[in-house]
Amino acid sequence: MTYALLDGLRVIESSAFIAAPLAGLTLAQWGADVIRVEMIGGGIDYARMPRMPHPEQRGRSLYWTGLNKGKRSLAVDLRQPEGRELIQALVTAADAPAAPVSAGPTTTGPRAALGGGVLLTNIGTPWLAHGLLAARRPDLISCTIQGNADGSTAVDYTVNSAAGYPAITGGGSIQRPVNHVLPAWDIACAYQAAFAIVAAQLRRQQCGAGAELKIALSDIAFTMLSHLGVLAETQLLGSERPSIGNHIYGAFGRDFGTADGKRVMVAGISAGQWRALVKACDAGDAVKALEARLGRNLDDEAERHAARDELAALFEPWFAARPYAAVAAALDAHQVCWGPYRTVGELMAVDPRVSLANPVFETLDTPGIGPHIAAGSAVRLGGAEREPTSPAPLLGAHTDEVLAQVLGLSGAAIGALHDRGVVAGPERDPSVAAARS
Amino acid sequence: MTYALLDGLRVIESSAFIAAPLAGLTLAQWGADVIRVEMIGGGIDYARMPRMPHPEQRGRSLYWTGLNKGKRSLAVDLRQPEGRELIQALVTAADAPAAPVSAGPTTTGPRAALGGGVLLTNIGTPWLAHGLLAARRPDLISCTIQGNADGSTAVDYTVNSAAGYPAITGGGSIQRPVNHVLPAWDIACAYQAAFAIVAAQLRRQQCGAGAELKIALSDIAFTMLSHLGVLAETQLLGSERPSIGNHIYGAFGRDFGTADGKRVMVAGISAGQWRALVKACDAGDAVKALEARLGRNLDDEAERHAARDELAALFEPWFAARPYAAVAAALDAHQVCWGPYRTVGELMAVDPRVSLANPVFETLDTPGIGPHIAAGSAVRLGGAEREPTSPAPLLGAHTDEVLAQVLGLSGAAIGALHDRGVVAGPERDPSVAAARS
Repeated sequence: MTYALLDGLRVIESSAFIAAPLAGLTLAQWGADVIRVEMIGGGIDYARMPRMPHPEQRGRSLYWTGLNKGKRSLAVDLRQPEGRELIQALVTAADAPAAPVSAGPTTTGPRAALGGGVLLTNIGTPWLAHGLLAARRPDLISCTIQGNADGSTAVDYTVNSAAGYPAITGGGSIQRPVNHVLPAWDIACAYQAAFAIVAAQLRRQQCGAGAELKIALSDIAFTMLSHLGVLAETQLLGSERPSIGNHIYGAFGRDFGTADGKRVMVAGISAGQWRALVKACDAGDAVKALEARLGRNLDDEAERHAARDELAALFEPWFAARPYAAVAAALDAHQVCWGPYRTVGELMAVDPRVSLANPVFETLDTPGIGPHIAAGSAVRLGGAEREPTSPAPLLGAHTDEVLAQVLGLSGAAIGALHDRGVVAGPERDPSVAAARS
Repeated sequence: MTYALLDGLRVIESSAFIAAPLAGLTLAQWGADVIRVEMIGGGIDYARMPRMPHPEQRGRSLYWTGLNKGKRSLAVDLRQPEGRELIQALVTAADAPAAPVSAGPTTTGPRAALGGGVLLTNIGTPWLAHGLLAARRPDLISCTIQGNADGSTAVDYTVNSAAGYPAITGGGSIQRPVNHVLPAWDIACAYQAAFAIVAAQLRRQQCGAGAELKIALSDIAFTMLSHLGVLAETQLLGSERPSIGNHIYGAFGRDFGTADGKRVMVAGISAGQWRALVKACDAGDAVKALEARLGRNLDDEAERHAARDELAALFEPWFAARPYAAVAAALDAHQVCWGPYRTVGELMAVDPRVSLANPVFETLDTPGIGPHIAAGSAVRLGGAEREPTSPAPLLGAHTDEVLAQVLGLSGAAIGALHDRGVVAGPERDPSVAAARS
């Protein structure tokens, strides 16, 4: 974990893909004891690309291990009633003890009495239904992430297609839509879920009440269309936003090419950003002449937006005449709001913001993968030392520990569960099993 | 507000654009009393497009009003020391009273004793520095959203350009990048900030400690590259992700055109989604033949991804032979994970998920704009009735009320502040002032 603010909060996560695991990661980075329960051998996202090389394609997933660092892992046969009963018992178990436990990501520092009784899932299965579990622990907080609120399936891509963005991305149109690559709605959903769980915990701490939280990915997207003014624009102005390529909507900003074939993104949104850009490019006179020619007041961001093509043509030669280094130096000297376009490889090679020089990054040695750069919480908490994140565990790495600690099972009882194939330890992780065979 | 879970938490928001205002909106929808303080006449984002029509371009911004619903507004001359002192006093004022107050979005229900002492800002100004304010209220929680962690400027577009996504979006390349249109990093930052503030409040409630929270937009983006496995992939596998258009990375999924010129997005990520797609399109035999021809096991998602072009060619004729209605019916009958591509106008016209039939939406009557559809919280809280959101206020609509309630100023003192031009009421909102003139 990065910070211990949620230390003592135990969260049982039964999930897959991005939204719920990223919500769990967010809680884990802030000190919650997030226990991910998983099918023995791995759930449907355990082998998701990219994977480490492996002759039998059993290399660990860099995607899964990225989203599940800082958590503990319990491997269970979820098809067996006894396996399901174990998970129900874990979710509804009494609060965590106040003393530090002996292993796992929550060992450092004393624990507050936040307790357990939190379920995070995107798997709408009857045996994890809120009512069923709340009958056993009335102060249960459950957070269920759905595709659509009616329970029908939807993923980031199929929600995004309906949200209108692919029709206006790049040179896209409704006939030739351009999907964005970032799973932006999953990410928004994850952080909203982490917020909702902590807000519910705040209330539980005040009055003891539990909470049944449901978040539909489609609601995350469509509510955002309201928050950003897009629904009101469509309803009240009767307009559809056009596709404007790399131009920034509502102001002036665009990408420009440099003399040596690089590209930079430049934003002139606020008046200050706009003035800086004009000054850096020594374009004051040219902008005034353009204003006169177009009869526009380019101090107004909306008029800059209307004149975006003329403005882009005005600035283009300045960028095209200079190599990247000269462009960067001039823009920085005038505090222009700009950024280079980079591939991830270039980013990691040259940008100190993605390096161990940035304290949000650290080196993790993930089992089955080896050492690599990884991120803790993006938040910087003044006066708090950042603590290391534990790497994503092998499946079942904490099975015995969790069953003993949380459910108080004896070694004999745990052994019997192993013998009956109800639970498993890390030896059944596919990458380990493959290495043995 | 939608829910009263944060009722009694007073947040002073001094902000602009998306990330910080959306964080404030998130808190406000959950019952916090979010007081947005603003320059008299409006800050740099007050007129951001889209705007209502107005002969003098003073129509209200649908963007600003979308992001600032559910809040109270205080209009202050922030250039005057006395104005700044008022804001400092508001941030560091003693906790809110336990009894309900007479107006504003926090009137319903009894208030918990969460108190004030929370500052949310993206404006890094010395007079709002954490240390300065914490000297007056040691349990202060401040959350400052930055562009880069070193204080240099960056916006969503200039962070995204460096994150690698434009180089692989659509048919993009590093020489011809394609920006996505959604301000995805701002949104992620906003929800992360709301999470961090509530987590800090949870700790404050336990032990009385404040918190200085800083979140850089660039850290939000670059940490996500770790969480999604992209940094590890680049570092360990030495590969750069290629641009694959509308294909889903790591599995099979793509857009397809129907006989009547519509397009749909189809996802076959999990084994279940894949089998449903194959069945819906009656493609079992064809897929088997393709498996044999390619020598691939298409039950493996990574192999489906490798065979994506061949698979797309296999499915295309099925979609192209059917009108949209028939495609939709067949996909739904087999519970395929799919979604239509829509413009926002189409979405609002035909999709019940964006209508008053969906309880996350309501009708707001925003001053200066009129009635329109708007969203409350995307989260559904079981057993809780959704309460209406108050529309975005005119600038300064709550100036007098807030100064009286929070700072205990007398009517005479407030009048004197008006007379000296230190504060203003809604009559100085540009849209009102324009209507008068």
